Amino acid sequence: MSLHNCRVVLVRPKIAANLGAAARAMRNMGLTDLVLVSPEADAADPRARRLATHGEAILDQARVVGDLAEALADCLFVAATSARTGGPFRRQSVGFPDQAMPRVVECLSQGPAALVFGPESSGLTNAEVAACHFLIHIPADPTCPALNLAQAVAVCLYELRCCWLRTSGTVLPPAPPAPYATQERLFANLRAALEEIHFLYGPKADALMHALRHLIVRARPSAMETDVLLGLARQIRWYVEHHRGP
Amino acid sequence: MSLHNCRVVLVRPKIAANLGAAARAMRNMGLTDLVLVSPEADAADPRARRLATHGEAILDQARVVGDLAEALADCLFVAATSARTGGPFRRQSVGFPDQAMPRVVECLSQGPAALVFGPESSGLTNAEVAACHFLIHIPADPTCPALNLAQAVAVCLYELRCCWLRTSGTVLPPAPPAPYATQERLFANLRAALEEIHFLYGPKADALMHALRHLIVRARPSAMETDVLLGLARQIRWYVEHHRGP
Repeated sequence: MSLHNCRVVLVRPKIAANLGAAARAMRNMGLTDLVLVSPEADAADPRARRLATHGEAILDQARVVGDLAEALADCLFVAATSARTGGPFRRQSVGFPDQAMPRVVECLSQGPAALVFGPESSGLTNAEVAACHFLIHIPADPTCPALNLAQAVAVCLYELRCCWLRTSGTVLPPAPPAPYATQERLFANLRAALEEIHFLYGPKADALMHALRHLIVRARPSAMETDVLLGLARQIRWYVEHHRGP
Repeated sequence: MSLHNCRVVLVRPKIAANLGAAARAMRNMGLTDLVLVSPEADAADPRARRLATHGEAILDQARVVGDLAEALADCLFVAATSARTGGPFRRQSVGFPDQAMPRVVECLSQGPAALVFGPESSGLTNAEVAACHFLIHIPADPTCPALNLAQAVAVCLYELRCCWLRTSGTVLPPAPPAPYATQERLFANLRAALEEIHFLYGPKADALMHALRHLIVRARPSAMETDVLLGLARQIRWYVEHHRGP
């Protein structure tokens, strides 16, 4: 098992120096797979390369994609980072880095995992955080919780590496969870089904769906289990289709 | 007990931006006491202030001293950081950050402690490391062990803060799962609902219900989440009741 399977995803990064500093932290901690989602900064910018110190190859190989779902499609476990934890995040699985990383390490023997970091000034949007399986909260001073982007990457990768070093790799892994895209297909079908029976409607629909989604995500459904739930969603829709009332 | 009692000592720092980035990390993690030993960079440099983001006051109050002994004189516990651990360091107490920080936190109720970081290119000298009580080694990739100075500060202060939060018992526990009987009521209602829409029928019904049950149990649903699922089961039954087909 290797940390090469853990992807770092930077969403809309603005400052080239941070790309370089993040690549250096990845090199220090043994990671290689960097994906940039709609970046405003350029990995080839000399200010990025100047801060990369031995991480230049990571910058060279960084992939640029158009949206977050594309960056995450093949990932089995996806953790977002945010300084915010209240409001809409309250129903999601939230934890400190040392609570998140054992799950990342457990995933790595089965397929790719991703750590997602938002843009410098604003962080990830609520929708982006909600699209991830887990929300990592670095326990900073509540009066000044927003870390420098590359420092947040360094802290998370340090905790990941410590956890990885502690893990002997002799524990029998559970069935691997279904890939991100498969889980998303389930959620889309489930939402449609629950709207058709009027369980989801009106202003509370999003919050309810969010709660359901993260309850399911927390259980880390296998491919077989995702199929069962997808079958359930389809059966609800089939029932509605064949029993429309007057 | 407060983290204000923990001092960050930067020895001969060369790059002004690193002073600012280190001050930001200190502000994020709740530290205030910065001491610069024979610095080549100036805390008043605009490049330092630009990276300090809310840590400007820490830069303003940073003290400049001529040698390491002066920076450490009143400290009860002093930990150096280095990427090197062999040779002359072998006889010293060496550990990862999570092994060092409990000793720092233990000290803080009694008097000041210090974390000492060396200059960007070369790190602390052997004599400087030997003058400290403990050597912290961040477990980076051995082929590229030297971290950016401010990232090393961020990693160490993150570990310090986590240790401090654990000790002072302020970590938020997760919501407790719903009691057994509440979960059982949910499963009974869910089973009835899924039978009414013919998702569960015939010889495979028990196995399917078993799969669903253990998926939900694995997520350890809270009382609120159990209510959401119970509401969903009831809504399915309500829909069936009001839309019976021909």
